[in-house]
Amino acid sequence: MRPSKRAADELRKVSLERGVARYAEGSCLVKFGETHVLCTASLEERAPPWLRGTGKGWVTAEYAMLPRATHERTRREVTAGKPSGRTQEIQRLIGRSLRSVVDLAAIGEKQIVIDCDVLQADGGTRTAAITGGWVALHDCLQWMRGRSMVSGNPLRDHVAAISCGVAQGVPVLDLDYAEDSSAETDANFVITGAGGLVEVQGTAEGKPFSEEELLAMLRLARQGVGRLIELQKLAVM
Amino acid sequence: MRPSKRAADELRKVSLERGVARYAEGSCLVKFGETHVLCTASLEERAPPWLRGTGKGWVTAEYAMLPRATHERTRREVTAGKPSGRTQEIQRLIGRSLRSVVDLAAIGEKQIVIDCDVLQADGGTRTAAITGGWVALHDCLQWMRGRSMVSGNPLRDHVAAISCGVAQGVPVLDLDYAEDSSAETDANFVITGAGGLVEVQGTAEGKPFSEEELLAMLRLARQGVGRLIELQKLAVM
Amino acid sequence: MRPSKRAADELRKVSLERGVARYAEGSCLVKFGETHVLCTASLEERAPPWLRGTGKGWVTAEYAMLPRATHERTRREVTAGKPSGRTQEIQRLIGRSLRSVVDLAAIGEKQIVIDCDVLQADGGTRTAAITGGWVALHDCLQWMRGRSMVSGNPLRDHVAAISCGVAQGVPVLDLDYAEDSSAETDANFVITGAGGLVEVQGTAEGKPFSEEELLAMLRLARQGVGRLIELQKLAVM
Amino acid sequence: MRPSKRAADELRKVSLERGVARYAEGSCLVKFGETHVLCTASLEERAPPWLRGTGKGWVTAEYAMLPRATHERTRREVTAGKPSGRTQEIQRLIGRSLRSVVDLAAIGEKQIVIDCDVLQADGGTRTAAITGGWVALHDCLQWMRGRSMVSGNPLRDHVAAISCGVAQGVPVLDLDYAEDSSAETDANFVITGAGGLVEVQGTAEGKPFSEEELLAMLRLARQGVGRLIELQKLAVM
Amino acid sequence: MRPSKRAADELRKVSLERGVARYAEGSCLVKFGETHVLCTASLEERAPPWLRGTGKGWVTAEYAMLPRATHERTRREVTAGKPSGRTQEIQRLIGRSLRSVVDLAAIGEKQIVIDCDVLQADGGTRTAAITGGWVALHDCLQWMRGRSMVSGNPLRDHVAAISCGVAQGVPVLDLDYAEDSSAETDANFVITGAGGLVEVQGTAEGKPFSEEELLAMLRLARQGVGRLIELQKLAVM
Amino acid sequence: MRPSKRAADELRKVSLERGVARYAEGSCLVKFGETHVLCTASLEERAPPWLRGTGKGWVTAEYAMLPRATHERTRREVTAGKPSGRTQEIQRLIGRSLRSVVDLAAIGEKQIVIDCDVLQADGGTRTAAITGGWVALHDCLQWMRGRSMVSGNPLRDHVAAISCGVAQGVPVLDLDYAEDSSAETDANFVITGAGGLVEVQGTAEGKPFSEEELLAMLRLARQGVGRLIELQKLAVM
Repeated sequence: MRPSKRAADELRKVSLERGVARYAEGSCLVKFGETHVLCTASLEERAPPWLRGTGKGWVTAEYAMLPRATHERTRREVTAGKPSGRTQEIQRLIGRSLRSVVDLAAIGEKQIVIDCDVLQADGGTRTAAITGGWVALHDCLQWMRGRSMVSGNPLRDHVAAISCGVAQGVPVLDLDYAEDSSAETDANFVITGAGGLVEVQGTAEGKPFSEEELLAMLRLARQGVGRLIELQKLAVM
Repeated sequence: MRPSKRAADELRKVSLERGVARYAEGSCLVKFGETHVLCTASLEERAPPWLRGTGKGWVTAEYAMLPRATHERTRREVTAGKPSGRTQEIQRLIGRSLRSVVDLAAIGEKQIVIDCDVLQADGGTRTAAITGGWVALHDCLQWMRGRSMVSGNPLRDHVAAISCGVAQGVPVLDLDYAEDSSAETDANFVITGAGGLVEVQGTAEGKPFSEEELLAMLRLARQGVGRLIELQKLAVM
Repeated sequence: MRPSKRAADELRKVSLERGVARYAEGSCLVKFGETHVLCTASLEERAPPWLRGTGKGWVTAEYAMLPRATHERTRREVTAGKPSGRTQEIQRLIGRSLRSVVDLAAIGEKQIVIDCDVLQADGGTRTAAITGGWVALHDCLQWMRGRSMVSGNPLRDHVAAISCGVAQGVPVLDLDYAEDSSAETDANFVITGAGGLVEVQGTAEGKPFSEEELLAMLRLARQGVGRLIELQKLAVM
Repeated sequence: MRPSKRAADELRKVSLERGVARYAEGSCLVKFGETHVLCTASLEERAPPWLRGTGKGWVTAEYAMLPRATHERTRREVTAGKPSGRTQEIQRLIGRSLRSVVDLAAIGEKQIVIDCDVLQADGGTRTAAITGGWVALHDCLQWMRGRSMVSGNPLRDHVAAISCGVAQGVPVLDLDYAEDSSAETDANFVITGAGGLVEVQGTAEGKPFSEEELLAMLRLARQGVGRLIELQKLAVM
Repeated sequence: MRPSKRAADELRKVSLERGVARYAEGSCLVKFGETHVLCTASLEERAPPWLRGTGKGWVTAEYAMLPRATHERTRREVTAGKPSGRTQEIQRLIGRSLRSVVDLAAIGEKQIVIDCDVLQADGGTRTAAITGGWVALHDCLQWMRGRSMVSGNPLRDHVAAISCGVAQGVPVLDLDYAEDSSAETDANFVITGAGGLVEVQGTAEGKPFSEEELLAMLRLARQGVGRLIELQKLAVM
Repeated sequence: MRPSKRAADELRKVSLERGVARYAEGSCLVKFGETHVLCTASLEERAPPWLRGTGKGWVTAEYAMLPRATHERTRREVTAGKPSGRTQEIQRLIGRSLRSVVDLAAIGEKQIVIDCDVLQADGGTRTAAITGGWVALHDCLQWMRGRSMVSGNPLRDHVAAISCGVAQGVPVLDLDYAEDSSAETDANFVITGAGGLVEVQGTAEGKPFSEEELLAMLRLARQGVGRLIELQKLAVM
């Protein structure tokens, strides 16, 4: 039995609320149970320097947690003067994941920044951020289409993410903090609407995992992402 | 006529929502119109080093804005590696204001950190943060009292803050962003429940202001703070 | 009786010595008793980026203390890698105060930097810096006028600053360090030659202050600033 | 045909040279073709603070590239003042991978630091670092056993790593820089001597990859790691 | 003919004014012509960590220039977040030079910090700082002796420093900024009262220098330091 | 008798191996006994900003040690966020030394960066770096000549460096770490092929040194540099 009483293949209660940030071109408050992430999409007039003259744009992401998103207060990263390794890993993952479904040439030499700020953290913040970040990005691109700033639809597909784990020997879906802390293996899957794999990251926390466990987690993830993409569709309808 | 159509002595719609952060010892989401600040109070076991052996505790504050709280996206301060001068000024002001109504000896050698994170900014974020921070602090102290961690009630009074300005020659209460940008003079007042002045900060943006204008703004501020403290009382009832 | 034996409305011995820095366009060594601040004005060919194309210039200030300006040695801020919150607050105040009496359009797209370096600190360094900074700025503008770099006189008025406090219940003028440490309330006033208020900053260190105390301090400040402006006039004669 | 003319399942020429750093407790110069990484193991008397009192030790890794390891000179990270996100991701991966085969309780409250400095980079530096880092770690633990600093053998298994990719639609083993730059998918696998998976990281660079491709890459990786572990065995014989 | 009309072996006008910083344990304003350096000595209760338990103390130095000490304003180093290489080289040199004449065991586990702040710079700031720093150090040690904090006299000798150069083929003493900028060779000599060499640093700016030139500069330096030490004796008399 | 059994005027075994870095325009692995430094020369298309429009180029150097080059592991400088004072002193010295033999006008507005990374440190790393850096620079300039990027030969002479010391009263050549730690005096000499002095840096570690000792060290240095330049000639033959 999971600490949360959920079935092995059961997501937490997920919600995706659009339009929560008055000034952003797109925004979404995503909740995976007690994990709450505010995602905003900001259009910036200038693409990064390495794209000058290519006609292509860029989508990037930044990630941070409010100091008291967690059980114990966490020191602000500005106090240390730089983002932690974990923060950088997560924001690189979010950016890569979202770029995988965008036609960067269609948006021209502009940049869209997806800010993912964790208001409350109970495990799975990066997967929630990717899932909600897609909604914010969608709305930003719609905003641009409404102003004829893009040609065609630069958004080629949905993309969403979910964590899986092996806890007490059993593959389970969508770990919360309690489960994540004790699982033997932790894996994050980023999957498109068409079912393609964008990112697979499996890590043994204690003993190594087997190919069978990897495949079992992948099956759970496909199912979970399928449900998340349904919710994205409802959200942007 | 003010841009917001409000009367000169009229506050924006203010709300104070308690208990919004699941893990914090105290929390409050404060809204002054479109300005939204999430305030949390975190109890830390250790007081700052300079208080070791004094038996006294400390209340401090940190302040930040989400990058897309504003009309244009603002760069995260962690990217610059340090908080800006404006951020530091504001967090020092919030800390001083809240400490003015706390009996630091009664809380012992502990520290309470008030984190004020601006989710949306439309002017007056620092005054909203002080007003909502008081509620978060109140709840944290109640939490401590419930665990017999303090003797008596360390909270001696209410404290709240409001901005005033002189706009087109007329003293007005509670400036929003549009009004703040164009006002000749901008002043912040921090006032206790007993009516004592904790902080008065008046700044001429263009031409200097007169003693009469200072006094007119002070009168408006007293009235506004009176209303804010009524709302604090309702919130913690 | 004040620790310094001064009357409640008595300034410390103030002196303003011009032309003390051989290479600067303007300079002033200002002394308020044992507080000594070296102010220099440096003309820079380029205005800050946000003024490009506006035809307007800028006046800004930087502030620092020598490590052994104080009773105990203070660590250099470069060792911490960034200026403290206090330093940033002070330099922003000095800059705002001096800009309030300058016609920024008259100086063109240039920048004048007022460096205020505290050689010895006995309270009131920021008010001394504003008062002496005005002299350095005056001389820099004269230097520019001598070279026909400005049209007309960009300096519209005098501006000077003084601190007041409530010590043992009595409003007093121009606090030194000993008095500042023990005063219940501390306030800084920046006032122009025409008597306009540029900045009023009152802070309760312990118990809140009353409107009467604020007004009593303001009266003392007006008198003190009047005397400081007489000394500025003598200095630049 | 691969740019290097290798077969799809063919490793580059791999060598593991022990004892190359005179002062380190363990060291290995690992070469995967033109990728050369110097790995040293340093025993430190103190474990990280969070292990105080647990009786457990720690193994951590640091990673860097010499500025001219690459085709174009890369700026030193010390110039930017902090390690890049990529560097932090890699050093976290190396540390996790090596810890997966060490009995941390057996080494007591000490720390072993594996420094992986890339002398020359032609793709696959992180997998070379894990593979060579194991040899350096092995020798450091032997050094400790020779001095009776550990009880039993804290090293429970081999661990090695290899990259795979899908290039022009074909799964291939051990990408060099040219192949890595153009592959559609890039995956790193960290596998133990017993065949357990420690880390699986697959990333679509362009279009998403399929489950079949993931499994084909995993098969190649198992084969490659098998060969690397044979070479580790020869190296420490 | 030198730009300053001085003879080849002629110092600039040198003065050493003691007791200029009210709060420091020792201080000296040293002037070598238009180069003015304020040196203070601060006694700190704690020696650096690496001396714990040795019974020995330490003397260290810090060096900085006011932004407008120079012809053109120089950016404050705190703005860059770290001292420049030049600053670090100079403060290490001052510290080593002064330690060469102090019995560190006699001062016990304490630290004396010599702060050298350049108020005005016209070449030779590091040599002026060493020469004036000795006076500040002397007075700090006297202050300690007056309080029986040291046994005997920890100051074993005088030490002073001077620059020399080869300008237009002629060895000259005590370069000012104009001469320093154009000299082919620049050398600094730190010499004790007994005539021992503490530091010799000769640098060819353009073409290399010969042994004869080195020796000619050394002869000039001995003569100059002899004069500086006479002035130190007068200053502390 | 020296700890290494060498005669007073005997160098350690020195070797200069060219072409060790596959991608660099020039490279050299230099060994002075157990001190091993990898020097690479990288051609960069842009000269530093202060040379824009002068037609001149620049040669600069960077220096670092691998963390376990030394007996005890040294923390990476990137962890502290900035290069130490020692590192900056050394890289400035290497750059000045190499520039002394280059015709900067002949290389045009380009920059050559000499990276000196210490793989193993047993004293004398900076002198090894200068000696090996010359070889890397030579090869980079040859590479440029082969592509007609320079006119004539911009390399005017050889330059090499060696340390000397006074150990137990005896002047000795080429100190290793053991000797360096105990020597009373330590001096570094940078000398050209024509015998000119580029840099002389003598430091008394304990008691001051005499002119005779300085000259004796200089004689040893001339002899040692003569031998090093012979080896450079053989290396680039």
